[in-house]
Amino acid sequence: MDYVVEHIYLLVIVTLISVLQNVFFALKVEKECNIKHTHTPAFERVSCANRNCIDTYPTFMAVMWCAGLCLNQAPAAFAGIIYLGVRHKYFVGYMGQTCQSTPGYLFGKRILGFLILMCMVGIFNYLLSPYFGSNYKEYLETITGAASALLLIP
Amino acid sequence: MDYVVEHIYLLVIVTLISVLQNVFFALKVEKECNIKHTHTPAFERVSCANRNCIDTYPTFMAVMWCAGLCLNQAPAAFAGIIYLGVRHKYFVGYMGQTCQSTPGYLFGKRILGFLILMCMVGIFNYLLSPYFGSNYKEYLETITGAASALLLIP
Amino acid sequence: MDYVVEHIYLLVIVTLISVLQNVFFALKVEKECNIKHTHTPAFERVSCANRNCIDTYPTFMAVMWCAGLCLNQAPAAFAGIIYLGVRHKYFVGYMGQTCQSTPGYLFGKRILGFLILMCMVGIFNYLLSPYFGSNYKEYLETITGAASALLLIP
Repeated sequence: MDYVVEHIYLLVIVTLISVLQNVFFALKVEKECNIKHTHTPAFERVSCANRNCIDTYPTFMAVMWCAGLCLNQAPAAFAGIIYLGVRHKYFVGYMGQTCQSTPGYLFGKRILGFLILMCMVGIFNYLLSPYFGSNYKEYLETITGAASALLLIP
Repeated sequence: MDYVVEHIYLLVIVTLISVLQNVFFALKVEKECNIKHTHTPAFERVSCANRNCIDTYPTFMAVMWCAGLCLNQAPAAFAGIIYLGVRHKYFVGYMGQTCQSTPGYLFGKRILGFLILMCMVGIFNYLLSPYFGSNYKEYLETITGAASALLLIP
Repeated sequence: MDYVVEHIYLLVIVTLISVLQNVFFALKVEKECNIKHTHTPAFERVSCANRNCIDTYPTFMAVMWCAGLCLNQAPAAFAGIIYLGVRHKYFVGYMGQTCQSTPGYLFGKRILGFLILMCMVGIFNYLLSPYFGSNYKEYLETITGAASALLLIP
C-alpha cells in the first residue's frame, strides 16, 4: 500500500493531530467535571465548546479528505492545520453561555469554503479532462497552492 | 491518483452535496438564533432537527463509502442522493418538540439497510471468490443497480 | 478496485459491525422513548449513553482507518473489534445520570492510544524509509500484531 500512503500521508498527519486535539478537548471536559460535581458555568462553557467542535468534526474530515484525494494533498493538509488552529483558539476563548447560540457555531467558514472549492475544482477537472484533451491538473495544483497562502490573512 | 478518482468521483460528489447541506442546516440554526435571542420553540425545533441529522451523519458516510468501495459506486451514490433528499424533507418538516423523541430519529432506515446489504454482498463476494473460481461481481453490480431503483418507491 | 479491497476488507467488516451497533443503540433510544412518553430517568440514561457513544464515533473511525491504511489492517481491525466490545459493555451498563459527567465519557482510552501509536509508527516508517535504506515495515507489522494481543488484558 506504499503507493497509496505516498498520496495521503500529509492528510493522515493532520487527522492524527485532530484526533489528539479531540482527546485533549474530551479530557478538559472530564477534568472540569471531576473538580466540581455540580453544573457550574465553567463546566457548561467547556461542554458546549466541545459539543460545537464535535458537531462540525465529521463535516471537516469529509471535505478535507475529498479535497486531498481529488486535487492535491498539500494545500488540503495546510488548510486543515489552519482549521485546527482556529478550532483551538475557539475552544480556549469560548465565552458563550448556551449551546449553538454564538455566532461562532460554524467557525472557520473561510477554510471550509476553500476546501469545498478545491473539491469542486478537482471533480470538474476530472470530468472535463476527456473533452478538453489536455489535463490542467498541474496548473490547478500550482494555483491552489498559491491560493492556500491567502488563508493565513486573518 | 487519477485511477483512484475514477472509482470514487460519484461518492465525492455526494459527499460534497451532503457537506453543503450540513452547512445549510448550521446556517439555519444560526439565523434562527440571531433573530430572537430567547429560546423560542422555533429555535428548539430547528436545533433538534439539526442535532438528529448530525448524529446520523458519520454512520451514513461510513456505510456509503464502504458500500461504494466494496461493490460499485453508482448504486451507492444513488442511494446517498436519495438519503440526502429524505434528510432535507425531514429537516424542513420537523415538528417534534423534544430531542430524539420522534419516530423519525432514525430516518431513512430503508436506505441505510440497502447500503448495509450492499456492503455485506461486496465483502462476501470478495471473500468467496477464491473458492468458487468465478467472480460474480459484474452480475452483482447489475442486480444492485436494478435494486437501487426500488428505493424510489415511497 | 480488487487490489484496494484486499487491503481494507477487515476494516470494512469492523465498520459494518460498528454501523449495526449504532443502529442498535438508536433503536434502543427510540424504543425507550415510545414506551413512556415522559422523560423518565431510564430514557435519560439511554439517551446520554447513546450521545457519548456517538460523540466519540468519528474520532474512533478516523484513527482506525488511518492506522489500518498506514501500517497494517489486521491489528487495527482487531483493536476496533475490542473497542466495539468495550462500547457495548459501556452502553449496557451505563448508570450515569447527567451527560458527559461520568469518568467513562472517554471510554476505551487504551485502545485509542494503541491506534494513535500505530498511526505514528506507520507515518514515521514511511517518512524515514528513504534515509535508512531498509524498510522495517514487515518487522513493525509483526511487533504490532504481537502488541495488539496485549489489549486483551483487562
